[in-house]
Amino acid sequence: MIRRLAHVGIATRSLESLSRLYQDLGLEVESTETVADQKVRAAILPVGDTAVELLEGTEPDSVISRFVEKRGEGIHHIAFEVDDLREDLRRLRERNVDLIDEVPRTGAEGRLIAFIHPRSTGGVLVELTQAPVQPKE
Amino acid sequence: MIRRLAHVGIATRSLESLSRLYQDLGLEVESTETVADQKVRAAILPVGDTAVELLEGTEPDSVISRFVEKRGEGIHHIAFEVDDLREDLRRLRERNVDLIDEVPRTGAEGRLIAFIHPRSTGGVLVELTQAPVQPKE
Repeated sequence: MIRRLAHVGIATRSLESLSRLYQDLGLEVESTETVADQKVRAAILPVGDTAVELLEGTEPDSVISRFVEKRGEGIHHIAFEVDDLREDLRRLRERNVDLIDEVPRTGAEGRLIAFIHPRSTGGVLVELTQAPVQPKE
Repeated sequence: MIRRLAHVGIATRSLESLSRLYQDLGLEVESTETVADQKVRAAILPVGDTAVELLEGTEPDSVISRFVEKRGEGIHHIAFEVDDLREDLRRLRERNVDLIDEVPRTGAEGRLIAFIHPRSTGGVLVELTQAPVQPKE
């Protein structure tokens, strides 16, 4: 079950200049991180209970660089936070939804993530993400 | 100043089949409306403090039909709610941001709306929207 929109991911050539535009509109960059294995720099700008995530490729063969090269800058994906990713994937498989990840993989900060193929989601690359279970004290 | 992401607008060939996918993921269609002068049917599916807005053109010459024809289904625009649209447009003009609407126009339900050109926003069509002022009792 979807709980909230986690973020809207926008692929850009310049994190700095696009951050400036959203700052002009009153958003603030909460954090910037480099995800080395994805070859991407990301800036997170929270807005309400969701966030704008700006993405810039750090190498020409990064997924984001190739997206921008092929299609231009623009929205790359949207991510929804779910509370039981395995159960959601099971239900989607049952309904013949086209999944990029049949089982969850581990993303940043120990989150479980899986992508749904755009051909099942009206042309939109959809990420489902589940927060890691906190160890009980 | 942006207060929240109002919605993510997705252009589709079939409101029904795309609604079904998001319903599979636990979202619900809150309302469906036809905006005659835009030649569009829209379904609103709330998620947290924002919403997914599915858009289907009702005529081949609708903006949404032409978008789908040219680029395929996908995200058409994102809309942010602001609290003083005129002031935001003034500030953006000052910073040479490319505006589609230099002054607000009236959208559905008496809202003030204005679009920023994708060339200023990293390839993303951005709508700014302000709720109508409630008359004092």
